[in-house]
Amino acid sequence: MKSTMKTIAGGVCAPRGFLAGALRAGIKRVASQKDDLALVWSDHPCTAAGVFTTNRVQAAPVLVSKQNLRTKAHRGILMNSGNANACTGSQGLHDARECVRLTAAAMGVKPGEILVCSTGRIGVAMPMGKIADGIALLPGRLSRKGSRDAAVAIMTSDTFPKQEAVEFSLGEKKVRVGGMAKGAGMINPNMATMLCAVTTDASLPAELAKKILARVAESTFNRITVDGDMSTNDTVLLLANGVSGVKIRASNKAEISAFEEALAIVCSKLARSIVQDGEGTTKIIEIDLQGARNPAQAKSAVDAVANSILLKCAWAGGDPNWGRLIDALGYSKAIFDPNKVDVFYEDLHLVKAGCLGPADMEKVRRVAALPAFRITIDLHSGKSARRILTSDLTEEYVRFNLSE
Amino acid sequence: MKSTMKTIAGGVCAPRGFLAGALRAGIKRVASQKDDLALVWSDHPCTAAGVFTTNRVQAAPVLVSKQNLRTKAHRGILMNSGNANACTGSQGLHDARECVRLTAAAMGVKPGEILVCSTGRIGVAMPMGKIADGIALLPGRLSRKGSRDAAVAIMTSDTFPKQEAVEFSLGEKKVRVGGMAKGAGMINPNMATMLCAVTTDASLPAELAKKILARVAESTFNRITVDGDMSTNDTVLLLANGVSGVKIRASNKAEISAFEEALAIVCSKLARSIVQDGEGTTKIIEIDLQGARNPAQAKSAVDAVANSILLKCAWAGGDPNWGRLIDALGYSKAIFDPNKVDVFYEDLHLVKAGCLGPADMEKVRRVAALPAFRITIDLHSGKSARRILTSDLTEEYVRFNLSE
Repeated sequence: MKSTMKTIAGGVCAPRGFLAGALRAGIKRVASQKDDLALVWSDHPCTAAGVFTTNRVQAAPVLVSKQNLRTKAHRGILMNSGNANACTGSQGLHDARECVRLTAAAMGVKPGEILVCSTGRIGVAMPMGKIADGIALLPGRLSRKGSRDAAVAIMTSDTFPKQEAVEFSLGEKKVRVGGMAKGAGMINPNMATMLCAVTTDASLPAELAKKILARVAESTFNRITVDGDMSTNDTVLLLANGVSGVKIRASNKAEISAFEEALAIVCSKLARSIVQDGEGTTKIIEIDLQGARNPAQAKSAVDAVANSILLKCAWAGGDPNWGRLIDALGYSKAIFDPNKVDVFYEDLHLVKAGCLGPADMEKVRRVAALPAFRITIDLHSGKSARRILTSDLTEEYVRFNLSE
Repeated sequence: MKSTMKTIAGGVCAPRGFLAGALRAGIKRVASQKDDLALVWSDHPCTAAGVFTTNRVQAAPVLVSKQNLRTKAHRGILMNSGNANACTGSQGLHDARECVRLTAAAMGVKPGEILVCSTGRIGVAMPMGKIADGIALLPGRLSRKGSRDAAVAIMTSDTFPKQEAVEFSLGEKKVRVGGMAKGAGMINPNMATMLCAVTTDASLPAELAKKILARVAESTFNRITVDGDMSTNDTVLLLANGVSGVKIRASNKAEISAFEEALAIVCSKLARSIVQDGEGTTKIIEIDLQGARNPAQAKSAVDAVANSILLKCAWAGGDPNWGRLIDALGYSKAIFDPNKVDVFYEDLHLVKAGCLGPADMEKVRRVAALPAFRITIDLHSGKSARRILTSDLTEEYVRFNLSE
């Protein structure tokens, strides 16, 4: 039972039974005309799962959503930009709980059925008056066509909204998976200031949902990096309402495989959009590292290359600076023989056995000037491999981050 | 026996019996009028010691100097900019040995008495014809006043030559320690594209010299960071010729302590100059981390803060962005309670128990706008502390590194 995946429109509202809406509550300091408060809603109770930042400092909404995930049925996700509600102490926890309580009251459900995500400034108290006013109006904004509005409302320094959806058949029935995300700065493997809501009209047991979401997040959102910084607020939440009538059973590998593939397509597209929209980013570079001794060494090596400031600057200038690349491999924790390393820019053999390879340097420069290219590295020291998507580092990134 | 340390002029030539000289061999690709080949020379045989990059990829001169350090007596250090002789395979090793052989021949000593350092482009063969011509002329350039010429010749993207010297008394006699260094980009704890030559007219046993140099390098050069990248060529070399008549004995703690203090002064001043002269750097920030559970966690926490791209951009803009700072601590390997963390900009209590502290934000901003300031962080989780000097990250850094 091999399913065909079809890209469809509608983002988080593509799966049946989901609504979304947004409005401007005025959470942002600066006079911004952009919406900053969004609700993703299911008209049926959902199974929910979440993957969260591994940062030791976790924002209040992360703590509250983790707690609420212990509840069995869920209906919605409240998301805001403009304020991360992080490093806000007990006041922050109180505020995150209040957001949940107000949303539940406005929608006529229990607080435990609501999940919450925030992104924006750290260390500033949430403007609860404005937020309460906004939440009271949110139910009137919900619509089957509200996915884009919601995707826009969660944007911070993002320059475009990010939403994706796919449809596939399981037996006679069609299943849909939709998602939206925000990214921009502070993007790093193991999550970032990255918020993502994924919806599906399949149903699946909570434990299975959690496992699949964790695997997919690991192979998508945890394989991107913009600046190596990992935020206090990173969250991926999945709501599954079962409206399609399709059950994904823990005992059925084919069902799991089809659903996981659909989820992975949505998440990998969103992840790629996040890198593409990284602050000041002009290039997406896929680093494909092979031949490491073990998975930990593969990760260390590929992360060192993907996060080298010097290398990221070189890429911004279209410079295929293999010296900086070999240097980064050398200070990673990977054990390898420097005299065996091969590096390719696309198919061009730039480094052969640790020295300058046979590739035509003009051609390599042309690859390095492209808006997207792949670098393959073989350490020839083992069988572990790992890929990561990274970006270049431009003057615009620095200018953008001179102050928050 | 407490010694007074007196700052003196003369760099590597301040200690008696040392000469230095430089010339333009034409190693640099671009038409540069700057000298690029230097020799530091002792007219008496020296004890030597070295500390080298921990990068797995080590440049040929690093390998050759390590090998030559097994010899007992040393006379000089050949240093060049323009070409790092790294990732150059067996040809590179051959070339580094040839540099040593030619220098020894020109000076009438054995090859094992010569040490060698290179900095510059990676992966390009050394222009041995030009270098051989240069080495042949070097003996004629040696002088007691040549330290500045040598310090200039090893500069790459450095904007000023770096040399220091101190004098102290031991009993009736005076001991001098001098040094020079080059830094700029790729500067990171555990060494960087950082070359340093230190000289002294004391004598000390090789084993003791090695131990003292390792301790001093660890507390100075390994406590600075510019871009988190560590180079393939980092080298600190010490030559001790004993011309002062003062012997530093392994059995005498007071002698060791005085000598080590002098060496630490020279090295810490050079290290600070390197951060100050980091590519595009406009600020030096000292991060003083306290209260970590153990030394490894202290290192992880202070490195995360010192190398956060986002935070370095904020500092460039004079923004005391404590959110990004707490975030960096959170993704380090340090274990701590986020609700106990204190952060001070100078004496201003910016973060108290994980939340915004009582400091006047306008005053904090004025500190963050200074060209040099200290940030003290207390994790309140143990007794380990660690300091590091870091810099801001400016658009100029990126512009500079767009291509090599």
